[in-house]
Amino acid sequence: MINQHYGKIPPAYLFSEVATRVKQYQDEHPSAEILRLGIGDVTRPLAAAVADTLQRAASEQATTIGFRGYGPEQGYLFLREAIVAGEYAPLGAPISPDEIFVGDGSKTDTAGIQELFAADATVAVSDPVYPVYVDSNALSGRLGECTNGRWDNLTYLECTEENDYRPSIPETPVDLVYLCSPNNPTGTTLSRENLERWVDWARATGAVILFDVAYRAFIKDDSVPRSIYEIPGAEEVAIEFGSFSKTAGFTGLRCSWTVVPRALHRDGASLHTMWSRRHATKFNGTPYIVQRAAEAIYSEAGSRQVQTDLDYYLRNAGLIRDALLNNGVPAVGGLNSPYVWFRCPGGLDSWTFFDALLQEAQIVGTPGVGFGPAGADHFRLSAFGSYEDTREAVTRLAAIIPTYSPSLIRSEN
Amino acid sequence: MINQHYGKIPPAYLFSEVATRVKQYQDEHPSAEILRLGIGDVTRPLAAAVADTLQRAASEQATTIGFRGYGPEQGYLFLREAIVAGEYAPLGAPISPDEIFVGDGSKTDTAGIQELFAADATVAVSDPVYPVYVDSNALSGRLGECTNGRWDNLTYLECTEENDYRPSIPETPVDLVYLCSPNNPTGTTLSRENLERWVDWARATGAVILFDVAYRAFIKDDSVPRSIYEIPGAEEVAIEFGSFSKTAGFTGLRCSWTVVPRALHRDGASLHTMWSRRHATKFNGTPYIVQRAAEAIYSEAGSRQVQTDLDYYLRNAGLIRDALLNNGVPAVGGLNSPYVWFRCPGGLDSWTFFDALLQEAQIVGTPGVGFGPAGADHFRLSAFGSYEDTREAVTRLAAIIPTYSPSLIRSEN
Repeated sequence: MINQHYGKIPPAYLFSEVATRVKQYQDEHPSAEILRLGIGDVTRPLAAAVADTLQRAASEQATTIGFRGYGPEQGYLFLREAIVAGEYAPLGAPISPDEIFVGDGSKTDTAGIQELFAADATVAVSDPVYPVYVDSNALSGRLGECTNGRWDNLTYLECTEENDYRPSIPETPVDLVYLCSPNNPTGTTLSRENLERWVDWARATGAVILFDVAYRAFIKDDSVPRSIYEIPGAEEVAIEFGSFSKTAGFTGLRCSWTVVPRALHRDGASLHTMWSRRHATKFNGTPYIVQRAAEAIYSEAGSRQVQTDLDYYLRNAGLIRDALLNNGVPAVGGLNSPYVWFRCPGGLDSWTFFDALLQEAQIVGTPGVGFGPAGADHFRLSAFGSYEDTREAVTRLAAIIPTYSPSLIRSEN
Repeated sequence: MINQHYGKIPPAYLFSEVATRVKQYQDEHPSAEILRLGIGDVTRPLAAAVADTLQRAASEQATTIGFRGYGPEQGYLFLREAIVAGEYAPLGAPISPDEIFVGDGSKTDTAGIQELFAADATVAVSDPVYPVYVDSNALSGRLGECTNGRWDNLTYLECTEENDYRPSIPETPVDLVYLCSPNNPTGTTLSRENLERWVDWARATGAVILFDVAYRAFIKDDSVPRSIYEIPGAEEVAIEFGSFSKTAGFTGLRCSWTVVPRALHRDGASLHTMWSRRHATKFNGTPYIVQRAAEAIYSEAGSRQVQTDLDYYLRNAGLIRDALLNNGVPAVGGLNSPYVWFRCPGGLDSWTFFDALLQEAQIVGTPGVGFGPAGADHFRLSAFGSYEDTREAVTRLAAIIPTYSPSLIRSEN
């Protein structure tokens, strides 16, 4: 009677294993100052404009006249209009408020979207990848069996030094492909030319692109697309997922959006109608006060405050990136992204390098194997710590990396 | 490539059709004072203790030291402990905080729970029923085809005058049964003896009971169970869904809980482990500030304020119930529940009675057919309006009902 696919998925032990190893080290070295560059969570407090709005909306809710119960199923129009005005209109992307669905987080939205597709729909993901894309399909039984961390009905698009850590178009057709730019975990971005190729391919094959732009606010380079809908015709092939989590520190507040264009049809059905049905049946809306808080990031004060925090993290990212590159480690990301990704020095696997970095530099990072088979010898560092910690971390990195990369050091002599 | 089951589900037109007919009537009768007794949403503002807590938590989030990002996957321990202390310990129900999962609404939780079960798991629901139980299973393809509002792979447990509007145990085995007490839409409750029979049956057959107690805070009669875990052994057969929506006016704030006991296993698997996996993969937590607000309803001031609002609605429910009974309409519910349910007077079907009530008494209710085939000649009135509107409504009901029930009037002469 149970869904047997749950038993096929390996335990999600990455972050708990990280926590266990860190705790053990801290217990054995109580005076060690451990620097956490593993976290994928923000640390800067909520912007004043956001907190003020939350407080105002909460007090409004305590009055008979201001009280709001169930909201509109797609989200309040004031927020859907603000998202279009703030995120899409400036790009010339042809998205209307009616095509925006307000959600409570990109994890929920990207995990739920596969429900619109058949049990035998075929799926491709980048490797390495944000694990939710894979796990949500696995739980629905779409991926077959998992052996040594590899699902037999999943197309892995390897991202390595050879392709600049950008996925190549699948050689055999697939129904669904998940793309994420700026990427978690690699920090790389897809160029306009990359995206045009993906859209062309999807238009030719009928595939649907599931495009995750949770980190789009980190893009500083105007030549990098912030939305797939900057590419003409994408509205017939792509669903896009945006989030306030990393943009404005909403990881504890929970607000996101999904764009399902009216022009997107498959097998004669409107995916907009289907997602609307799914949204109304399995979700009951993001809190009104949170939707008001999200709207506030588009105010003059809100956008300035949010940008200050983004710049703070980007400065950290630059420090990490530079420390690695200056020490001969060919890192990617860290520009237009809070994540830096690199092959572990000295040919180490990612857990061995994790232990080395913890024990010899008291730095916590994230082993790449947690993001897929292609991450087994890679590592992720994140820019979400404090500036002071990041400064100290890059000093320690500069001291330790040469000891793990004797060949690199020699080549510089 | 798409999920074809979406195309099988009839459009969810009930409330939009209600809105359309009300708008048309109002346009044609601009001066009519329409009283809305159809809504299933609360109208009282947030309790002061809740709003104050929200404001405090929001300002805490605007400080570096007080900021909280991603929370614990199952919900904050402070809230899980408060739920156990406030909802389960007083009943002697053997539930621990580790068995509580904090969610963002009972709709989300009751819609998601079916994902733990096989595609061919068999399902029973009461008829009438909260539509989400049915629709979520239909979208997953578990119910076959729908003809005239009836799914061919769904067991309907009819609730009629003959069985006091309480579902009877299915004659043929099923894997899952959804029960709701106090019930939406009928307002009836299951007695301890009823629940003991359900638990015995589930223990004997291996069925899992999905028990929805979203309206439990309306129970004033201490002989009525507030949790299925008041019945010994239920922790091996039942999952329970609780909500802050109707308890404390959280319909716009979004917080709920699901209890999956450690003792609940099927096919050798722990349903607790499975739900934990589903929760962590497809959900990213209820906002921290909302979890703090939910905790506040268990404070001395919070519980007093919340009880005042519950009593306000219950007074309305009593007025509606009495107005019907006193006019010869054998209504149920309205005690221990905000809903009153009755067979439409004069043998009318539920849409015809809807129109009659709107046109001749300017009262909006909910046609029973929206809750399933057995509701086709029944009607729901809700107690969530204002006291003043409800008083006026029952005066109008007393005036109009006799005109639709000539036989009842005659029998009283």
